[in-house]
Amino acid sequence: MGLVVQKYGGSSVADAEGIKRVAKRIVEAKKNGHQVVVVVSAMGDTTDELIDLAEQVSPMPAGREFDMLLTAGERISMALLAMAIKNLGHEAQSFTGSQAGVITDSVHNKARIIDVTPGRIRTALDEGNIAIVAGFQGVSQDKKDITTLGRGGSDTTAVALAAALDAEVCEIYTDVDGVFTADPRVVTKAKKIDWISFEDMLELAASGSKVLLHRCVEYARRYNIPIHVRSSFSGLQGTWVSNEPTGDKVEQAIISGVAHDTSEAKITVVGVPDKPGEAAAIFRAVADAEINIDMIVQNVSAASTGLTDISFTLPKAEGRKAIDALEKAKGAIGFDSLRYDDQIGKISLVGAGMKTNPGVTADFFRALSDAGVNIELISTSEIRISVVTRADDVDEAVRAVHTAFGLDSDSDEAVVYGGTGR
Amino acid sequence: MGLVVQKYGGSSVADAEGIKRVAKRIVEAKKNGHQVVVVVSAMGDTTDELIDLAEQVSPMPAGREFDMLLTAGERISMALLAMAIKNLGHEAQSFTGSQAGVITDSVHNKARIIDVTPGRIRTALDEGNIAIVAGFQGVSQDKKDITTLGRGGSDTTAVALAAALDAEVCEIYTDVDGVFTADPRVVTKAKKIDWISFEDMLELAASGSKVLLHRCVEYARRYNIPIHVRSSFSGLQGTWVSNEPTGDKVEQAIISGVAHDTSEAKITVVGVPDKPGEAAAIFRAVADAEINIDMIVQNVSAASTGLTDISFTLPKAEGRKAIDALEKAKGAIGFDSLRYDDQIGKISLVGAGMKTNPGVTADFFRALSDAGVNIELISTSEIRISVVTRADDVDEAVRAVHTAFGLDSDSDEAVVYGGTGR
Repeated sequence: MGLVVQKYGGSSVADAEGIKRVAKRIVEAKKNGHQVVVVVSAMGDTTDELIDLAEQVSPMPAGREFDMLLTAGERISMALLAMAIKNLGHEAQSFTGSQAGVITDSVHNKARIIDVTPGRIRTALDEGNIAIVAGFQGVSQDKKDITTLGRGGSDTTAVALAAALDAEVCEIYTDVDGVFTADPRVVTKAKKIDWISFEDMLELAASGSKVLLHRCVEYARRYNIPIHVRSSFSGLQGTWVSNEPTGDKVEQAIISGVAHDTSEAKITVVGVPDKPGEAAAIFRAVADAEINIDMIVQNVSAASTGLTDISFTLPKAEGRKAIDALEKAKGAIGFDSLRYDDQIGKISLVGAGMKTNPGVTADFFRALSDAGVNIELISTSEIRISVVTRADDVDEAVRAVHTAFGLDSDSDEAVVYGGTGR
Repeated sequence: MGLVVQKYGGSSVADAEGIKRVAKRIVEAKKNGHQVVVVVSAMGDTTDELIDLAEQVSPMPAGREFDMLLTAGERISMALLAMAIKNLGHEAQSFTGSQAGVITDSVHNKARIIDVTPGRIRTALDEGNIAIVAGFQGVSQDKKDITTLGRGGSDTTAVALAAALDAEVCEIYTDVDGVFTADPRVVTKAKKIDWISFEDMLELAASGSKVLLHRCVEYARRYNIPIHVRSSFSGLQGTWVSNEPTGDKVEQAIISGVAHDTSEAKITVVGVPDKPGEAAAIFRAVADAEINIDMIVQNVSAASTGLTDISFTLPKAEGRKAIDALEKAKGAIGFDSLRYDDQIGKISLVGAGMKTNPGVTADFFRALSDAGVNIELISTSEIRISVVTRADDVDEAVRAVHTAFGLDSDSDEAVVYGGTGR
């Protein structure tokens, strides 16, 4: 039996009872002969409470100190978890990100892991301990300051440690049973996916699926670490994310799932002169403001005016900043006006089967049309089609597409395509 | 202007308002031209809440993990304090005990500082920062594990840093105005002491005064660091603790104050054979159980029986353990029985003037006698007399002695003694 890394999120360790439940599960893995490394998030609402405190003392908490503050959360949960395990008669030691050798860059609040040197973890394991590691945090390479990895950072910690320790698997424990073919809160007939490839999972994550974050899946793919997403509340098998299907029964589906996202807004730059360099100027202005954009669409220019419109989507939270940046550059770029719209939603269909199955795109648009959903923007990748619609239409659109592609749990109709390419 | 170390206790930073108030005070010191190092405790009840959580997951939390848990408390307060200072337009950086170079032994929950290497603090100060340091915590020299210093540990952190950084003064901010001639909750006429010697302060601390702990005063005396105990809620001068009186008006009082302590119990070993080695055997048994004892009194042996009684006092919390240890050694030692009494109190009169003023002891006993207080045990040092009485008599006894020695705030009668020795 090899080494497993298990990660438990805040909802799994929300209180003392949760911690004791998780401790039992960890001890089971140890009893089964595994070496066990556990990555743990802060308990329940701890992080939100700390953020609230920070806002009470300072409207703009500084990065370094904010990270110092937030990392107290995992310190509490990991120490309690180690105590709970020891109380079950097994040896456990907790380690901060710094002690675990999680080395990052110096970008506070959203640091990137640049190296993992888990010497102390190895020693602790070799001495028979279960090692408990604080998720979400590291130490900067140059200044030795405490850093945090940003949203979903504990998953990344877990995958990075799994890679550095050459683990068999990285188990991500959460409060749902795995990755579903759609958000079960929207599509009651959504099915749990038994296996999904890294590529499809990356597209789902990029398209609004919240179970795993893009960054964590990317890390796992790079180092080829299988991820097993499962519930900490049940003993059920969850979703395996890996290069190759695991087990006999699983084979790659044509369509992995339908994701949706209502966290974005759309900005349309109206009346852009249709000449070289205009789009570049617009997106340079946005990039200089450190705003990540998602979809971009440029309309065909009207021959009569020589003017075109360019639309793009971006996180709502960055809308104000983007508008300001563009207004400031208006003179240099030369456009008529800006339109801002935060009542949009994005629906994405993801599946590697798309590459070799023509007709997927047409069927997708047909399903939306039948449901009376109007499409405002379209963007595609090799294994994904995304459309932007009115926010109010999103739930209905997701259900329609989910049913159309035979993904509903009570559906017999596996959709079959012939030929190659779409 | 030199370097000052300021220490703020949990009651001074109990909430966001407290943190902002303390931040202003710190910035004042910086504006006055000082380099400022701040040692901060955990906010208000944080430590108690963490202990409560630990008890929920494990009846006997392990030392290493318990320390990891508790140190989250200062991590929160120090980061918030640094943010609050930055919000006032001054540069500040927070440092854990480990980052500040507080090196300890490996005795978890009550580690001792064995070295302080404040390189990062020096650098931060030289770069113009106010340095905020987590009190109460360090890192063990051998295993690099996080340790805590036990009760009152933040005061010790402050004095140790003051010594290592060669500070002008270590200011201990608290919720009272300084050290008083008696506990103001018992003696309403107690006066604030302007200056007190290290020696007298050590005796007061050992005798039950809670404002400063013995360990912290001892450290300050060893490195000759003046301590200024003062309120974080007022701008008043507090109590200076140092080798030499500060300022013109202060001169050493004959009597510094009256301390009392009701946290101890008394054990009497009855019917001990009056022969060499018996007392040694008794206190070896107690010492082997790692129990600290305070006063010891052996009665004159009764000639008829050749047996004597030996009484000693110790913290109530260790009473059970001491009784067990003695019962186990009963056969080897040879005594009749044990008596346990936790309804006792100790009153101590402290003052270097005692050495050169005869009659202090007699006046002390007279004051107790006039108040109808019966004395059960007596112990003395060069500058202290302590008696054990019934717990119920303690408050009355303290007030009587305080008045008798002219310490009451409305008293004109400074007690004067002639001659030398008592």
